[in-house]
Amino acid sequence: MRYVLLVAYDGGGYGGWQIQKNAESVQGKLAAAIKTALGVEANPVASGRTDAGVHAAGQVCHFDGETSVPPERIADALNIYLPKDISVLKSAAAPEGFHATASAKKKTYCYRAYVDSRRNPLKDGYSTKIDFKLDLQKLKSVVQYFIGEHDFKAYCSSGSTIKTTVREIYSIDVKINKSLYGTDIELYFTGNGFLYNMVRTLAGTMFDYAAGRLDGERIKRSLDTGDRAQVGKTMPPQGLTLEEVDYGVKLFI
Amino acid sequence: MRYVLLVAYDGGGYGGWQIQKNAESVQGKLAAAIKTALGVEANPVASGRTDAGVHAAGQVCHFDGETSVPPERIADALNIYLPKDISVLKSAAAPEGFHATASAKKKTYCYRAYVDSRRNPLKDGYSTKIDFKLDLQKLKSVVQYFIGEHDFKAYCSSGSTIKTTVREIYSIDVKINKSLYGTDIELYFTGNGFLYNMVRTLAGTMFDYAAGRLDGERIKRSLDTGDRAQVGKTMPPQGLTLEEVDYGVKLFI
Repeated sequence: MRYVLLVAYDGGGYGGWQIQKNAESVQGKLAAAIKTALGVEANPVASGRTDAGVHAAGQVCHFDGETSVPPERIADALNIYLPKDISVLKSAAAPEGFHATASAKKKTYCYRAYVDSRRNPLKDGYSTKIDFKLDLQKLKSVVQYFIGEHDFKAYCSSGSTIKTTVREIYSIDVKINKSLYGTDIELYFTGNGFLYNMVRTLAGTMFDYAAGRLDGERIKRSLDTGDRAQVGKTMPPQGLTLEEVDYGVKLFI
Repeated sequence: MRYVLLVAYDGGGYGGWQIQKNAESVQGKLAAAIKTALGVEANPVASGRTDAGVHAAGQVCHFDGETSVPPERIADALNIYLPKDISVLKSAAAPEGFHATASAKKKTYCYRAYVDSRRNPLKDGYSTKIDFKLDLQKLKSVVQYFIGEHDFKAYCSSGSTIKTTVREIYSIDVKINKSLYGTDIELYFTGNGFLYNMVRTLAGTMFDYAAGRLDGERIKRSLDTGDRAQVGKTMPPQGLTLEEVDYGVKLFI
C-alpha cells in the first residue's frame, strides 16, 4: 500500500529534506515517526528535495507499507511523534501509480523579502532583509524575461547531475505590501519544475535588476548562453518556501 | 536628554517586557544594550508592559541619558548588542514633555489565530490554533458589542491595581484570509488603552461567540455587571502582537 502525505515544516533547524550524515533532516524525522507510530520501515519520497533552511507550506511525499491505521488518520498518528517544526497536514491512500516526484505536474515556490535598513525579528525567520533600494516597477517588469520555456542552466548551482536544464515557468506573481514597518515582497514562482537553487538565483537576479545592478541584456544573455557570470546572487534560504505541489488530481479530502 | 525608541520583538523567549527575577525580559535586554553601547544607566519606560510571550511590531519606549551618538543612530548602536529577537527600528530625540506611557493616545493590538484540526509550524509562533468551528459572520458581527466606551472590568485579569477599568475601543477590524492551508484570522483592536489581558480575553470571547458557546446577552451582561464568569476564555499569548502606539505626533523620521 502506498500512502501520500501533505507536510508543512519550518526548515530553519534542518540540513534540508534529505537524510544526511551531519545534520537533522525532515525526511529522517518523518521516517522515525512512521517507524514509531506505524511500525513501518520506510523513507518517504518527496516531490523534490528542499535545501538546508528552506521551508515548506505544502510539501508532498509518499511511503510504502502496511498499517491498520485508516489512511486519513495517519497524519494524527505521525504528528504525535514529530517535532514542533514539522506537521503532517493531511494523509491519504495514494492513487494508482502515484509517485511524489515523478507524478508532480506543477510546483509553486514563494521567495519573501523585506526592504529595511534594520533587521526585524518578526520577519527574519521567513523573509530576507534587503538593505538596498529597489525600483518596485522594475521588479514587476523583469518577470517577462523568465516566463515560458527556457534553458535555466545559468540559474542552477553546479554539482547537480541532471538530464536537462530546460524548465517552463508558467507565472511569476510579484506581491508588494507596504505597511508602517517597511515594504514586504513576495515572489510566487509557478513552473513545471525548478533546478537546484534556481528560485533563489532567480529572486536574486530580479532584485539585482530592480536595484539597477544588472540589465535586461544580461538576463537575455544568461538564458541564451547558460553563463552563470551573467546572473545575480543566490538569495539566502530562509526566505524560500515550497508553497504547493500540483499533481493534476485531488490527493486529499 | 530624553530619547525615544521604536522597538520590535518576538516575545516567545521572554517573561514579558518588564524586568523580573526569574526570566529574561525585553526591558532588561534593552537596558543592557543602552549601558554597553552608550554607557548610559537607564531602564527604558514603555508605552505599556507586554506579557510573557506577547510580541511587538512597534513598541515605543523612552530613556534618559547623555550620549554623543546622534539620536537617529542610537538604533544601530543598540542593535549591535541586542539579541536577534529584539530590534530597535527607529530612534529619535523625544519631543518636549514626552512620556512613553503617559503620552500614548491610541494603541493597536492584533490577535492572530488559524482554524485547523492540525498544528501548522509556519503559523504557530505568531498565531493560535483553533480546532473548533467558527461562524465567520458571527465573528464579524460580535464586534458591535465592544465598540465605544465600556467598563471592561470583566475582561481584566485580577491582580492589577488600577484606577478605572473604563476604556474606549475605537475599532475592531476582523480580517479573514482563506488559503489552501486553512483559514487565518486577524483581529485588530484599536483603543485608548487596554487592561491587563483584556485583548486576549476579548479575542477569546469573540471566538466563543462565533462558535455558539455564548450569546450576545451574556456579553451585554459582562459589560453591564463586570462579572468575569460571563466572558470567554483568555487566549494564549503567542497570538498577540502590539502593532502600533499612536502619540498624535510624528516621533520618527
